[in-house]
Amino acid sequence: MKEGIGMVPGLAVIVVGHRRDSQSYVRNKMMACAEVGIKSMVAQLPEDCTKDQVLGALSSFDADPSVHGILVQLPLPQHLDEGKVLDVLRPEKDVDGFHPLNMGNLAMRGREPLFIPCTPKGCIEMLLRSGVEIAGRKAAVIGRSNIVGLPTSLLLQRHHATVSIVHAFTKNPELITCEADIVVTAAGVPNLVRGNWLKPGAVVIDVGTNPVEDPSSEHGYRLTGDVCYEEAVRVASAITPVPGGVGPMTIAMLLSNTLDSAKRVYAFT
Amino acid sequence: MKEGIGMVPGLAVIVVGHRRDSQSYVRNKMMACAEVGIKSMVAQLPEDCTKDQVLGALSSFDADPSVHGILVQLPLPQHLDEGKVLDVLRPEKDVDGFHPLNMGNLAMRGREPLFIPCTPKGCIEMLLRSGVEIAGRKAAVIGRSNIVGLPTSLLLQRHHATVSIVHAFTKNPELITCEADIVVTAAGVPNLVRGNWLKPGAVVIDVGTNPVEDPSSEHGYRLTGDVCYEEAVRVASAITPVPGGVGPMTIAMLLSNTLDSAKRVYAFT
Repeated sequence: MKEGIGMVPGLAVIVVGHRRDSQSYVRNKMMACAEVGIKSMVAQLPEDCTKDQVLGALSSFDADPSVHGILVQLPLPQHLDEGKVLDVLRPEKDVDGFHPLNMGNLAMRGREPLFIPCTPKGCIEMLLRSGVEIAGRKAAVIGRSNIVGLPTSLLLQRHHATVSIVHAFTKNPELITCEADIVVTAAGVPNLVRGNWLKPGAVVIDVGTNPVEDPSSEHGYRLTGDVCYEEAVRVASAITPVPGGVGPMTIAMLLSNTLDSAKRVYAFT
Repeated sequence: MKEGIGMVPGLAVIVVGHRRDSQSYVRNKMMACAEVGIKSMVAQLPEDCTKDQVLGALSSFDADPSVHGILVQLPLPQHLDEGKVLDVLRPEKDVDGFHPLNMGNLAMRGREPLFIPCTPKGCIEMLLRSGVEIAGRKAAVIGRSNIVGLPTSLLLQRHHATVSIVHAFTKNPELITCEADIVVTAAGVPNLVRGNWLKPGAVVIDVGTNPVEDPSSEHGYRLTGDVCYEEAVRVASAITPVPGGVGPMTIAMLLSNTLDSAKRVYAFT
């Protein structure tokens, strides 16, 4: 694109506060942008900033024609209403795909969202590239967050899987997961999914990234998924590790969404 | 409302062509409006009308402050793109709840749509009024249409059911339905759900309205649901008949959505 039309895609990130995990996610995204030639910029706002400060940062990125994607790093501090902030982000620059208009178009048949949320898109991409058949297979999604569980279940349905959604109210979730050919878990509970939760040969995608104390590690903690890997790896036909499984795919899809957005703006194909 | 502020809610319906079923649905809606004191009006357009004619009717109802709800009777003739027509309907008057923004807000946690689609809303209302517990129960939704299956599955999840969505690609759907405490079917296939598809004591809501030939009936056909009623009634703890089950609830919810819309406009509580 740079050679063809002298333009590069641009990604803007709004970060509020100094959560350690958010800072690390944002740093990874910036580094990935630099690697592939996407211009990136960050608005770092203080933890106690007002809603108007966030909206101000949003509208200045919105007005900037060199910015093709804007993302608000979640979670926001308690005093800011995520829904109200995300509503202000125009669907055309919503590279995270979290705007309700994009989510509605993802859910509805015969429609196409402008952007598909990055983590779910990365999960499906991994399945497709690994040659896992989705159509007609049973899939269980554990968790129903707006960021992962919900869009993953919608996307699996788009690919014609038979989807069951398991959550905190579900009694005996293992009876549902152990029928599934594909299990995607984003519950935020370490070691939730044990070996006996899985059907032999199932494909397991672990989206959990849970910090657990570990005095032996450099920062005093390490990241673990929702799946008891040692048990699951003996039952599953394929499984993603944590860290290093879904995370890099999420970033790749963010870059891909940003590129798509720039292509759309410049009508570049 | 009429006595309090001298205003009545107004509902406008756009009908294209002369499908017998659509005409009958619209007639029922108009009669229901008249019964409860909602002003109703119909724009009847010819089968071969252009997209601009439909959009013209939409925008004139949109500009009319006495109209609080607009619905486009579906299905539209093949040459009109339903999605593009519905996109033009403002979410504030979308009493059918089919706009992607309303659907996205129905799907996402922590958000509220302005309107919930009438048939799914009617199904849940029946469950609640019949004292059927939804939270933590297993629900199977058969069919994934934008009008019924999708919003029903989203709404059941809002009420904390564990939902599985069954569709044409599902292998052995009866293995899923026979685990469900609540079965909602909107597949459009007569007698699809047999007695052995159901768990004893399940609650069954039949949204199917399929015309089947019947020389003995007045019009040469009668309406039948997706459920083999004679078999299912012996297994289920509760079941809705077709006709006369979900249909009247759909109309009641349309009136309720229209009233809610007028209340919102006039800030009347």
